[in-house]
Amino acid sequence: MPEPMPDLPEPAHHELDSMLSRKFGKEVANYFSGSPLNRVSFLRTDHPFLSLALKHPSTSFLLFNNLNPLIVSSTKLAFASFKDVEPIIGEDIYSKSEEDLIKEYNSSKYIPQLVFLGLDDRNQDGLVYKDYYKGAPYFALDITPKDPIKSAAETLISSLETKGVSFSKGRMHISLPPQEAAIYAESRHLLDWNARNPFCASCGHPTFSVNAGFKRICPPRDLASSMTNSSASPDRPPCATRTGISNLSFPRTDPTVIMAVVSADGQKILLGRQKRWPEYWYSTLAGFLEPAESVEEAVRREVWEESGIHLGRVVIHSTQPWPYPANLMIGAIGQAIPGGEEIHLGHDAELEDAKWFPTDEVREALQIGTSGLGETAGPQYKEGGLRLPPRTAIANQLMSAVVGGFLGAEPKI
Amino acid sequence: MPEPMPDLPEPAHHELDSMLSRKFGKEVANYFSGSPLNRVSFLRTDHPFLSLALKHPSTSFLLFNNLNPLIVSSTKLAFASFKDVEPIIGEDIYSKSEEDLIKEYNSSKYIPQLVFLGLDDRNQDGLVYKDYYKGAPYFALDITPKDPIKSAAETLISSLETKGVSFSKGRMHISLPPQEAAIYAESRHLLDWNARNPFCASCGHPTFSVNAGFKRICPPRDLASSMTNSSASPDRPPCATRTGISNLSFPRTDPTVIMAVVSADGQKILLGRQKRWPEYWYSTLAGFLEPAESVEEAVRREVWEESGIHLGRVVIHSTQPWPYPANLMIGAIGQAIPGGEEIHLGHDAELEDAKWFPTDEVREALQIGTSGLGETAGPQYKEGGLRLPPRTAIANQLMSAVVGGFLGAEPKI
Repeated sequence: MPEPMPDLPEPAHHELDSMLSRKFGKEVANYFSGSPLNRVSFLRTDHPFLSLALKHPSTSFLLFNNLNPLIVSSTKLAFASFKDVEPIIGEDIYSKSEEDLIKEYNSSKYIPQLVFLGLDDRNQDGLVYKDYYKGAPYFALDITPKDPIKSAAETLISSLETKGVSFSKGRMHISLPPQEAAIYAESRHLLDWNARNPFCASCGHPTFSVNAGFKRICPPRDLASSMTNSSASPDRPPCATRTGISNLSFPRTDPTVIMAVVSADGQKILLGRQKRWPEYWYSTLAGFLEPAESVEEAVRREVWEESGIHLGRVVIHSTQPWPYPANLMIGAIGQAIPGGEEIHLGHDAELEDAKWFPTDEVREALQIGTSGLGETAGPQYKEGGLRLPPRTAIANQLMSAVVGGFLGAEPKI
Repeated sequence: MPEPMPDLPEPAHHELDSMLSRKFGKEVANYFSGSPLNRVSFLRTDHPFLSLALKHPSTSFLLFNNLNPLIVSSTKLAFASFKDVEPIIGEDIYSKSEEDLIKEYNSSKYIPQLVFLGLDDRNQDGLVYKDYYKGAPYFALDITPKDPIKSAAETLISSLETKGVSFSKGRMHISLPPQEAAIYAESRHLLDWNARNPFCASCGHPTFSVNAGFKRICPPRDLASSMTNSSASPDRPPCATRTGISNLSFPRTDPTVIMAVVSADGQKILLGRQKRWPEYWYSTLAGFLEPAESVEEAVRREVWEESGIHLGRVVIHSTQPWPYPANLMIGAIGQAIPGGEEIHLGHDAELEDAKWFPTDEVREALQIGTSGLGETAGPQYKEGGLRLPPRTAIANQLMSAVVGGFLGAEPKI
């Protein structure tokens, strides 16, 4: 399966050190994690709460057009207010209970996707609910102009553009501070999942978004059928997702392994490259974890399949949410067994090249050769030298851990 | 979301120590991992290879009826030969290329689900392919009796039963040696995923199994439509899954966090229980990782939502595949922050109870109070004492790590 792509730009505009510092002991917090929001997931079915959250003066809406977020600049998200979005979502979509909305389900009605992201309790003027849950509510909303919201969405977009904000042009143009990146990642992952799953994989009928954007169900009745044919029953055939809890109803997150591989003597690092990458650009190997694999097994399988190298010890390093579209990157560091270091690219056709690099060369490239995929490397970089992904990519963090001596305190194999 | 259930029985019949030994350094290999098979995933589209594998004398088929595997006894899988299954799957379903099979796709034809699991290279009489890929092939096959294979499946099942093998009666009745458990886990996860996804979540049309059971695609043509109406075009409307790589086409694995929580002073362990569990039975907390969370964030959120406790340090311990239906259990150990240890069950209604247990009480219960959920505890257990899940459950391994001093070598928060 395809390798996830580390293609975020180098964040020159803000300091990553505070985020990447080892808060909570030895934990490494990667880019896209570190959200300031309390998700209060158990309140997602509580429509009186959601109704208050929707209209509270402290509430922010992150708007998306075809999965691109509204931004002030590539380093700052833009947020809208309830008044901005009211012409699109109506006065209060949470005025009825979830149960009642399911009874009235009509698949022919387009409802713009809204997701409740959580509460930011750093805001002292936020909502207070049941004396206990406090903070400024955040929502994500898809306002891609399509019928019947086309006209209202276009009006809003024009009005926003006069204020100097606009939708990002793809992910290459975002380089957000870590906490905004985490809010964007949650939004994008959920909006993409909802957009990608309009039908039930179990029975083929249209699905309906509930739980404030965190669940899609296959309703037992659909009033659309009786609209076109008044004698038709709104009842649908039985569906397996209705008779028990099905994972199909919940957001999908794909566990992915990504690993820095060191030689048996600890002096070299294995890196690979894909054909479409810029010249001299390499990164760590990666791939999807398969059914019934532990993380260590997935790491060994992927490394052998892509490079022919046999790994012994594998240690999990850190994890990174990756919302393109739905990955959990599980970062590991693995060590080749003596005699298992010969590179063979013939198993799987995924990599154009894989090579052992001396640790010192990787250390230098981490200092002068990193950048986003579409960017140029820094001023100290010399043509022909190794190029590597930026610090926002977990691949960079894994290589940094190796050159920083991550495995050094442990006995060699 | 619901908590995964540790309900495998205690494996009295075989020794887990060899599997759970820290092979490859500090790695803990949990039950359901440790497969002896090389998946050679890049050969799943290679029909000449699959055709040889299907009919090789060393080949084994693990048969399933409604997701229950064929067994000799609760401690031993039973395998069938190609001759056994030929009346059900035909002479060679891989005689045509995948491309040709997609062209001939007809959604009205039922094809029993077959999954290529991998090669067991411990078998010296196994298949040899391209001089490099060696071993005895393993397949999983769903022979649930339904038209048009009903009669052939029933004949095979009768014939197998006269040989003294039968289908397990649910998962409570399986207690396999670790390597067989891993083969079963891969089979069950893949067969369940295929059975659960007969329709395309993107467009609602029937899907087709390819890549030897590891991919489901939405074919552009379906000959079924022209069978019922000869003037109907077999062409289907466009589908987003056809215009790029979509994760919807690949098996789903749900990352799940499960965590042993220790008090700030390291002297107590937090355990919770669900209402439906036997009296005195407790386990570690668990829940699904959500979109755009790191593992540590998911652990902290779940623990706070379910118990009100605030965690500081979180360390990943090990992982466990869990094929009911599709989880990757990511095991962690977390430590409460001073002042964040008060239990509050009012956020989320998931647990009936959560309690701090002295480490010594947990240590004793790990020795005398473990069993499968449906079993009785061992002879030394005294009524009223703490009961815990068996060693096959990662929850047990996490608690064992804590009482064994996993966090001890580190500074306290």
